Amino acid sequence: MKIAVLGTGGGARAHIAKLAELGHEVHVGTRDPEATLARTEPDMMGTPPFKEFLAEHPGIELHSFGDAAAASDGLVINGIDGHNAVKALSVIADQLAGKTLIDYAVPFVYQHTPEHPWPTPWGIMPKLDPCDSDSLGEQIQRALPRTKVVKSFVTQEQTTVVNPASVGAGDHTMFVAGDDTGAKQQATELLRSYGWTDILDLGPLVCARGMEMYAHMHSAIGFGLGHQFGGHFGIKVVR
Amino acid sequence: MKIAVLGTGGGARAHIAKLAELGHEVHVGTRDPEATLARTEPDMMGTPPFKEFLAEHPGIELHSFGDAAAASDGLVINGIDGHNAVKALSVIADQLAGKTLIDYAVPFVYQHTPEHPWPTPWGIMPKLDPCDSDSLGEQIQRALPRTKVVKSFVTQEQTTVVNPASVGAGDHTMFVAGDDTGAKQQATELLRSYGWTDILDLGPLVCARGMEMYAHMHSAIGFGLGHQFGGHFGIKVVR
Repeated sequence: MKIAVLGTGGGARAHIAKLAELGHEVHVGTRDPEATLARTEPDMMGTPPFKEFLAEHPGIELHSFGDAAAASDGLVINGIDGHNAVKALSVIADQLAGKTLIDYAVPFVYQHTPEHPWPTPWGIMPKLDPCDSDSLGEQIQRALPRTKVVKSFVTQEQTTVVNPASVGAGDHTMFVAGDDTGAKQQATELLRSYGWTDILDLGPLVCARGMEMYAHMHSAIGFGLGHQFGGHFGIKVVR
Repeated sequence: MKIAVLGTGGGARAHIAKLAELGHEVHVGTRDPEATLARTEPDMMGTPPFKEFLAEHPGIELHSFGDAAAASDGLVINGIDGHNAVKALSVIADQLAGKTLIDYAVPFVYQHTPEHPWPTPWGIMPKLDPCDSDSLGEQIQRALPRTKVVKSFVTQEQTTVVNPASVGAGDHTMFVAGDDTGAKQQATELLRSYGWTDILDLGPLVCARGMEMYAHMHSAIGFGLGHQFGGHFGIKVVR
């Protein structure tokens, strides 16, 4: 398949590499391809320049967000951070029309402090906006009425999402939520190709609230396990 | 031990019955004991009158909230609903001083509708207050500075908390959070006596935010599994 991944951060790279490994034609979108390629230093989270990643993964094409979405033949993964997602995606609504968009962003309110200069909240308690009575997934769906939004991947670190067997021999649970059954089926098939065996359909996109708000629990479990800047664990729904 | 359970609802009854079965002297607190004993009809959630429960569990004593807390020799379980907990507990701060209070309430904003007349949100998406930047557990701790508050039990239905083996042969995870290590140890020992083998200390009480906000995910998982008014499942942290 021709699959677009929007974003070049650590989470997006996990999906890009896995999709290429599975034989898909991967089109990566970034806000400004020239600026992305011009970077030569790791970002403040320690992620190496994207140029190095591209050199290690030949055959992957870097485009603008819109061109990457347009190159997809049906499936787009949103790796744009939650803070910027609605705005960036609204601009390319035409290129996303009719396609399935899998969103895994958490709408973190950025908390830059001298001790925690990075934009995501590992090591501190997160804050979310929206929260409780709305979700980023629902906001994206309202902004893109012609696109089928599926919320998934959000309850784990993306390195474990693309390699479920790396945690507990793969015996943990992944979740999907969305208002379009066919789109959820596409997401489920992608997850099976990643190696997931226990995929639970939570129901309509309103369930994205629970998936995003789980970010607090994910952080707390990570603290409890002694992790500081990531979490190599999953959760299994035991029934 | 002499243990107090504050509240007479379904969740509280699960703990009362289990504690009595384990040989503890259980002191149950209610706002107005006479009114509680006078009820002869099931409540709007279908819970039978407490008088019937008492008849089936001889030896359990019913008191006012304050008298029950005073009768405890160190451990109190808060089963007062989240909507009323801070106010009701503040009144008996003296009786709770120096004791460990295990709180499992979720601060649901009640949503009475003709279709959903009951006060807890099974069948609908919950709303929480406080949420995200504060938690009920922290509010209770601020209101009771002389009491050691532990948040626990909150991520599952209480019938499964007191009988973990009833779900997946007991191979799932229970969480504790709190600012006092000794109090968390007491809660952990109680959980072990209930049959829990995987108990994860998340850290300080700020982690109660994640445990309470997990109510959304718990509801969504329940929907996904096809439950309408309860959830017989647990979650296992796979690492």
